[in-house]
Amino acid sequence: MKITQSQILKLERLKRSNLVNTISGIKPVNLIGTVSGDGVTNLAVFNSVIHIGANPPLLGFIIRPYKEVRRDTYENIMETGYYTINNVNEKIVKQAHYTSAKFDKDVSEFTTCNLTEEYIQNFIPPFVKESHIKIGMKFVKQIPIDLNETSLIIGAIEFAEIADQSVDERGIIDHAINKTVGVAGLNTYYSIEKIAEYPYARKEELPEF
Amino acid sequence: MKITQSQILKLERLKRSNLVNTISGIKPVNLIGTVSGDGVTNLAVFNSVIHIGANPPLLGFIIRPYKEVRRDTYENIMETGYYTINNVNEKIVKQAHYTSAKFDKDVSEFTTCNLTEEYIQNFIPPFVKESHIKIGMKFVKQIPIDLNETSLIIGAIEFAEIADQSVDERGIIDHAINKTVGVAGLNTYYSIEKIAEYPYARKEELPEF
Repeated sequence: MKITQSQILKLERLKRSNLVNTISGIKPVNLIGTVSGDGVTNLAVFNSVIHIGANPPLLGFIIRPYKEVRRDTYENIMETGYYTINNVNEKIVKQAHYTSAKFDKDVSEFTTCNLTEEYIQNFIPPFVKESHIKIGMKFVKQIPIDLNETSLIIGAIEFAEIADQSVDERGIIDHAINKTVGVAGLNTYYSIEKIAEYPYARKEELPEF
Repeated sequence: MKITQSQILKLERLKRSNLVNTISGIKPVNLIGTVSGDGVTNLAVFNSVIHIGANPPLLGFIIRPYKEVRRDTYENIMETGYYTINNVNEKIVKQAHYTSAKFDKDVSEFTTCNLTEEYIQNFIPPFVKESHIKIGMKFVKQIPIDLNETSLIIGAIEFAEIADQSVDERGIIDHAINKTVGVAGLNTYYSIEKIAEYPYARKEELPEF
């Protein structure tokens, strides 16, 4: 099919959202853990975690307009300055998905979605015990995207816990070992299988295509 | 393994890059097609294409610091105002990877990496004929990230061509049908397989976990 911008704009809201959310390919699935000043923990699934840089180690994610609905994740990060990013694997994909339901503010998605809070040393927000990659994040900067009132939230990796057998001597995490899942759009989840690893590309060392 | 920020900062450069680039999970793989004012086409692989919003339909991607190396993609977008995003599938994953080699400015990655230029109507930059999802993009805004001199480049979808059999009546693109690939870090590619589709999550309709 071919579709133009004006046709996209005329689509029914959910269909437009589905199309534009699935068009760029497979995305990471991460659970962001936070806690409010009142001590209520929160867990929310995000498909927009993105690498910003390695030195310093920075990750970003996109937060939707605050005015539309309550944004506990955003509020809690602003309140405490810290959050956790927990990679989602096949065993917890269903629980992860349902953290997107609009639960009341005083209940924790850890409880309603049957995931286990884990606290590592004195880091304030909770990690997801069932996750194989747990990242402790410190909020660094909010970059507003005035085109549609979203924001890019950038944080620095304070520390990370990664399942031992999944990191090799080069620092590469094997997501097949971790049974990491991907998502397209908002509701279709995919398992992954390693198919190729290529060296750093040099023009003098091109393979046969 | 547990690793702290100060330990990450002390890692050898490539190992640090590998770790931070693989830590957030599986990422999309897209080829960005551009053309210079002189008419030299360019194709470069990106793992940072991200959904910014559906109304208007906006996608972003991260561009690395300009000063480090030549950035043909960025220069060409600034020069012409347009680019294409072409989703990578299993048949072209090797070619896609090798577009990251530093070829001379006057040669096209379409030639060196054996991919086929496709022109759709009068859209200026080339699409990748072998891709199943081809998106014509108009540059909208560059948002500098001063923390590490990267930028978020945002564009609007002008039109898209998507393999017919892969879009359902809800607007959801099936990436298993398209044999879309994902990447972790910079060199490990994964095939995908659909494992679950869940409805819009409502707190009144929670499943058994």
